[in-house]
Amino acid sequence: MNDQVRIVEVSPRDGLQNEKAIVPAAVKVELIDRLGRTGLRTIEATSFVSPKWVPQLADAAEVFAAIDRRPGIAYPVLVPNETGYDRARAVGVEEIAVFTAASEAFNRKNINAGIDESLQRFAPVLERARVDGVRVRGYVSTVLGCPYQGEVALADVVRVARALHGMGCYEVSLGDTIGVGTPAKAAAMLRAVAAEVPMPALALHFHDTYGQALANVLACLDEGARVVDAAVAGTGGCPYARGASGNVATEDVVYMLHGMGMDTGIDLDALADTGRWLAARLGRQTGSRVGRATAPADADPPVS
Amino acid sequence: MNDQVRIVEVSPRDGLQNEKAIVPAAVKVELIDRLGRTGLRTIEATSFVSPKWVPQLADAAEVFAAIDRRPGIAYPVLVPNETGYDRARAVGVEEIAVFTAASEAFNRKNINAGIDESLQRFAPVLERARVDGVRVRGYVSTVLGCPYQGEVALADVVRVARALHGMGCYEVSLGDTIGVGTPAKAAAMLRAVAAEVPMPALALHFHDTYGQALANVLACLDEGARVVDAAVAGTGGCPYARGASGNVATEDVVYMLHGMGMDTGIDLDALADTGRWLAARLGRQTGSRVGRATAPADADPPVS
Repeated sequence: MNDQVRIVEVSPRDGLQNEKAIVPAAVKVELIDRLGRTGLRTIEATSFVSPKWVPQLADAAEVFAAIDRRPGIAYPVLVPNETGYDRARAVGVEEIAVFTAASEAFNRKNINAGIDESLQRFAPVLERARVDGVRVRGYVSTVLGCPYQGEVALADVVRVARALHGMGCYEVSLGDTIGVGTPAKAAAMLRAVAAEVPMPALALHFHDTYGQALANVLACLDEGARVVDAAVAGTGGCPYARGASGNVATEDVVYMLHGMGMDTGIDLDALADTGRWLAARLGRQTGSRVGRATAPADADPPVS
Repeated sequence: MNDQVRIVEVSPRDGLQNEKAIVPAAVKVELIDRLGRTGLRTIEATSFVSPKWVPQLADAAEVFAAIDRRPGIAYPVLVPNETGYDRARAVGVEEIAVFTAASEAFNRKNINAGIDESLQRFAPVLERARVDGVRVRGYVSTVLGCPYQGEVALADVVRVARALHGMGCYEVSLGDTIGVGTPAKAAAMLRAVAAEVPMPALALHFHDTYGQALANVLACLDEGARVVDAAVAGTGGCPYARGASGNVATEDVVYMLHGMGMDTGIDLDALADTGRWLAARLGRQTGSRVGRATAPADADPPVS
């Protein structure tokens, strides 16, 4: 069994985008630079979606221009359209990510377009990226359930993933956006997609709303997946609030992988330090259990 | 694949024993009675270990005498020796649990006896239970790691589990007391034990210190395990504190099992209600993600 797993760290984008706290650009830059020293090879840096929709990342250009981009690390950014693409390219972005949902209802609610129209909107971005030699990652959200329509047909997940791959995405990340999935369902979804898109081109992107994310990752590793999206400190939603929908904590994923003899190239201690540092900046406890279990004694938080 | 899973609810004992909050006997009784209405078939009610060692459960006799024991539900209690056995039997206990560690160092530190001596101490209790028709469950702790000696040899885990089963325990619960295990290691441990003790006589008892418990349960379900110990609200250690070593949350286990098409006989809504009710009594948030995700909107806690 291939024992190399690549982690795509999404805390600077998917994490901070969904946190209540307003994080200064300097903290974002320090976060990305700290993450870059842990051994991570892919760090999603920010989003060039309109600040009107994502005010938390309105400083995308400022942040991207200031980070210490290290050789061997990819720093993809989210791009919704050609305007975003132009803004990203102006500050030297070399990899982007595009996104759509597998749920018709979710797309209509969020971008006022159906799945097919959503894909069409990306076509010019992907064509320009191809010409410019810019790598593109694709996100499919709501792959295991949708807050508006409930069930999402496997066929729709497969169709969207295949389309993104066919349009030139080197990797397609399969997102359980609302964290409702369970292991057997996650594995079945992955198998269905992998029948149409090569497994090495697929990534797992699971949120931990119902505590299932790590078990779902495990089930998908068993199917052969070897790319996992995660966010230090489980950022992306307060872990103590109702319906919090934070990402699976990178620390907890890496702890599991290393315990299973898999190689991530990541220094777990440095990663856990970074997660605790970020949580402190957010004014809350880390959402990573590994982060809490390995905290220095003098960092003990007050127990509520 | 057999799709019936039995949950052994341990919050009244393993959970409350390790919480900082002092819980009145009336709350314990109400907890057990609420749990008894959720469809659970096994509820570990309390411990007759000396109050000197476990002051949180000093009211064991009072609690056990007051609960509404329902037909079809087993209410085992922890018993360390003949004195505890006498106290338990005096209030009508019909099922007990005995315990030892697979780690020599852990036993010496905790009960000032090695593994073999620990097993010998139980012999008269098990003999009396046999004569009295009292069912006995056995716990083996530190099966995936020990806070004092680190690694625990698989051979020791197997030896202790086999001994407990051989001495008459109808079920042997395999405990990752400090929650350090990962899925491949948990599965390998279970396989080794199951080579000597029949799988239907084995239970999983995982703590979530490093966030691995549910993934470990999943890996062991794949091996054929069908009995899982768990505690509502993830009780047994504050989920926000360093090194918190709470049990895997019953709600999150049941959510996973039901999502995989397995049958527990449990009403998940009633279970999650009980977990939130208990967490409120403990003055903290529930440690169950399902409990938080399904909380009524008006129960939203203040976000720190």
